[in-house]
Amino acid sequence: MTTFIDSNALLMSQMMSQPMLISSLLTHAKNNYGTTEIVSRRTEGDIHRYTYADCEQRARQVAQMLSRLDVQPGDRIGTLAWNGYRHLELYYGISGSGSVCHTINPRLFEEQIAYIINHAEDKIIFFDITFLSLVEKMVPQCPTVQHWVCLSDKNKMPSSEIIELACYETLIANENGDYAWPVFDEFAASALCYTSGTTGRPKGALYSHRSTILHAYASALPGSLSISSAEVIMPVVPMFHVNAWGTPYSCPMTGAKIVFPGAKLDGASLFELIDTEQVTMAAGVPTIWAGLLQYVKEQNHSFHSFKRTVIGGSTCPPAMMASFSEYGVNVVHAWGMTELSPIGTVAGLKAVDLQKSKSEQNHILQKQGRSLYGIEMKIVDGEGKQLPNDGKAFGDLMVKGSWVISNYYRAEESPLVDGWFPTGDVSTIDADGNMQITDRSKDVIKSGGEWISSIDIENVAIAHPAVLIAACISVHHPKWDERPLLVVVKKTEILQDEQSLKKDILAFFEGKVAKWWIPDDVTFIDQMPLTATGKLMKLKLRELFKDHRLAQ
Amino acid sequence: MTTFIDSNALLMSQMMSQPMLISSLLTHAKNNYGTTEIVSRRTEGDIHRYTYADCEQRARQVAQMLSRLDVQPGDRIGTLAWNGYRHLELYYGISGSGSVCHTINPRLFEEQIAYIINHAEDKIIFFDITFLSLVEKMVPQCPTVQHWVCLSDKNKMPSSEIIELACYETLIANENGDYAWPVFDEFAASALCYTSGTTGRPKGALYSHRSTILHAYASALPGSLSISSAEVIMPVVPMFHVNAWGTPYSCPMTGAKIVFPGAKLDGASLFELIDTEQVTMAAGVPTIWAGLLQYVKEQNHSFHSFKRTVIGGSTCPPAMMASFSEYGVNVVHAWGMTELSPIGTVAGLKAVDLQKSKSEQNHILQKQGRSLYGIEMKIVDGEGKQLPNDGKAFGDLMVKGSWVISNYYRAEESPLVDGWFPTGDVSTIDADGNMQITDRSKDVIKSGGEWISSIDIENVAIAHPAVLIAACISVHHPKWDERPLLVVVKKTEILQDEQSLKKDILAFFEGKVAKWWIPDDVTFIDQMPLTATGKLMKLKLRELFKDHRLAQ
Repeated sequence: MTTFIDSNALLMSQMMSQPMLISSLLTHAKNNYGTTEIVSRRTEGDIHRYTYADCEQRARQVAQMLSRLDVQPGDRIGTLAWNGYRHLELYYGISGSGSVCHTINPRLFEEQIAYIINHAEDKIIFFDITFLSLVEKMVPQCPTVQHWVCLSDKNKMPSSEIIELACYETLIANENGDYAWPVFDEFAASALCYTSGTTGRPKGALYSHRSTILHAYASALPGSLSISSAEVIMPVVPMFHVNAWGTPYSCPMTGAKIVFPGAKLDGASLFELIDTEQVTMAAGVPTIWAGLLQYVKEQNHSFHSFKRTVIGGSTCPPAMMASFSEYGVNVVHAWGMTELSPIGTVAGLKAVDLQKSKSEQNHILQKQGRSLYGIEMKIVDGEGKQLPNDGKAFGDLMVKGSWVISNYYRAEESPLVDGWFPTGDVSTIDADGNMQITDRSKDVIKSGGEWISSIDIENVAIAHPAVLIAACISVHHPKWDERPLLVVVKKTEILQDEQSLKKDILAFFEGKVAKWWIPDDVTFIDQMPLTATGKLMKLKLRELFKDHRLAQ
Repeated sequence: MTTFIDSNALLMSQMMSQPMLISSLLTHAKNNYGTTEIVSRRTEGDIHRYTYADCEQRARQVAQMLSRLDVQPGDRIGTLAWNGYRHLELYYGISGSGSVCHTINPRLFEEQIAYIINHAEDKIIFFDITFLSLVEKMVPQCPTVQHWVCLSDKNKMPSSEIIELACYETLIANENGDYAWPVFDEFAASALCYTSGTTGRPKGALYSHRSTILHAYASALPGSLSISSAEVIMPVVPMFHVNAWGTPYSCPMTGAKIVFPGAKLDGASLFELIDTEQVTMAAGVPTIWAGLLQYVKEQNHSFHSFKRTVIGGSTCPPAMMASFSEYGVNVVHAWGMTELSPIGTVAGLKAVDLQKSKSEQNHILQKQGRSLYGIEMKIVDGEGKQLPNDGKAFGDLMVKGSWVISNYYRAEESPLVDGWFPTGDVSTIDADGNMQITDRSKDVIKSGGEWISSIDIENVAIAHPAVLIAACISVHHPKWDERPLLVVVKKTEILQDEQSLKKDILAFFEGKVAKWWIPDDVTFIDQMPLTATGKLMKLKLRELFKDHRLAQ
């Protein structure tokens, strides 16, 4: 039972009371790291470099420009842009002046993009040249948008027969930067980011200045992403994807040099930036790193400054961790979601772990890690009863904390359960607080009342030499309710007949998982159905195989 | 001109809103670092070790015990204790239950201690056995104190003919720990710490839960003290001295193992703990480190795990930085004060600095460093006009931020000037934000309207081979108003006559400082007057030499 103490019964402190506002991050960077560089690969094609002092000046010009375009505090302003310095200026110019920076994911389906612009009622959209044709399709569908501003030099501006385009650099040039950041409530909305669920409409997470700054503090800690002025950080994860995991905030907070890769995320382009800008840490998803590693291997290159890569979004395959390790790069596992700003946990070693064997260490580092201070986690069973943190029991992962949403933007009903946010992930938590995702709640297979982790099944399957991609889904079973079916994309060079391959794969599971976890059947397809953001669509697979007959 | 935006004009966010409370630090440590150790050298003589999980359990027992002793939220509870696990339990048990943890500095003069206990109206005093005779003197002078509780095992309890003593372990054993931390306003007072000024009455800084947690976040960052679960931290700076620079909060936040040295701060005892407990970082003042280095040198020992030492309180002599460096230990300079919780700045290298020469790096690392995010700094002249951050201009250092006091406890008049706290230090700030203390405001020498830094003069003097300690003070001058006088304690082995030594020392300044900065005279004394906490009392020196006649 939690008790509450009324403020009248307390002695109040005598410390300065000032709101935590996002603008102060950039002011801090200007005052303490004014000459530190921000380097960007531009959509115009060249490399752009300037400093935190320059960025802060131009962010104030952005704020003035917004005011001239009649933007009011609280208005939503959209961006359709890659990672770059202008996007960073928009982050600060918009949020710093009390408006809401709505980063739109251009990889969503067009109807989703139109839906979220209308749902947010964006007043202006700032977009990179790359997205002109997308914007041209949006214009007739998005009546709330009063200005479409292209993030381009004046002499590189594209022309459009459909819409009247404004030029960002021309608008900025009209302003002198003589602007003081306003002061307001730290619980005010600062940014808006929609989730791209596999079902239903996209839903918006509306962050606050307070939540953003607390997330930046916690995520920059040495046990988290370890961001400091001695580091050169390359956020490969897009700024339209949960604010590039908060790096646009944690880097100015700590004075880290930033390297923005723009639209070019191929191995050669990323390697060039890492090498020439002496990047020490990058953040991204496994698919990006696969391209980088392949390029480095093919070209027989090596890394000089590059020490760490933070991987989120999905689990890093152990083989990729080993490859990075050969190049002297440590993989840091992080777990999060849009509703968590996004970081909830980061994997790491304690002082006592440093004495352990490499394989024991890897066992810890392959988990999703411990919660950052500011986030609490628990796992519960189907009835909401808390399960033990013993590393074995797995249940629905619930979180709460200072940078977790309490509701979606403009949603009626809160998703919270007794004050906790249900993540939709199924996980274990060990006695040391290490969380490990075992499944998505909707993907877990409920066989005879017991749960089977589809991810554990897939991890075994993927180790089989003939398997390129594997997905484990539940299919209806008359006796057990649900049983696992393994869906496999074979490697192209595999010529073995499917019937005998199926037997091989099923035999491969023996001794690796509990007997009753072994799939009832294996089926082969040519390619996996993917969402707009490249995630496996298990829902689609379940539809596809809903009539699949298992042997009784 | 700062503008304020009213909350009604803003869009409010939809994030969870929960107060930042100190109890959550220890809960976090229990959940994520439950098995991590806290090791203490006890006043009973032995080494004690337990875990964060144990500490959290006993902190809840402390909270129950306080309630049984009729402590109400907001009540001040005093401690007279060394660094150890029981003191940590008190920090959390007291603050966590909504009361105020008043750490009393036993090194103050007795009348000062009585004054602050009475000023704070402490209801209970918890004290280490070491302080029994002090406590016996306090009892008749401190009528608000209802219980004097000795931090001791039952079978080691001392006896007193003067007062009735309670035993901490007996009181704790009465409680079962079935207690839930209460929830309340994050601006509530959590701890109280009095400054030991060289003039006037001690003044209390009344910290909040919010200020303490924000300070912990900022001070644990990799560019600050870099505290993580991979580190083993030894706070040598006392928990009665500005909360041991916040380490009792930043260590549980990040899961660092803590090693408490108790009352034994000699070189041999500290080395033993560093060596056996594999301490990676320690925090303290130069006098402590001089003893440690001397012991290590004499015994021909070396450090294995020890990587960093954080030095605050006063500037680390370059010779000590070099000695540590020989042993593979980096010195990290920090600056702060009681009114800042305490950390304001930490010195460190940026990515571009890593390419520079060792001597250029040392030049940066010898400064007091950049402000943590959350603290703003400026320097002003005698009229309050802001001076440039050019590394040359020096003026009164003013600060503001989330962990700076707005007033002293129960003081009528706020010390703030236009919302800024005047630190009483005189400093420069360079274009990179690096602050360097040049003097205390009251020690700066005002010669013909221009300022002379007494610390710069002393730094030159101390490099002279005959000088053991030097202090530069102002004496009245009929023409220039003030002129510098150098007061010197000679090394014992120096036999040179004082008249010729004086000439040598004055000649030593030539080319090292501006000609008009060279002291007008040198005078020799046997020893320097010190304050209760071991600081040089320049006020006393100025009194001693107020009639000193300078050549015109």
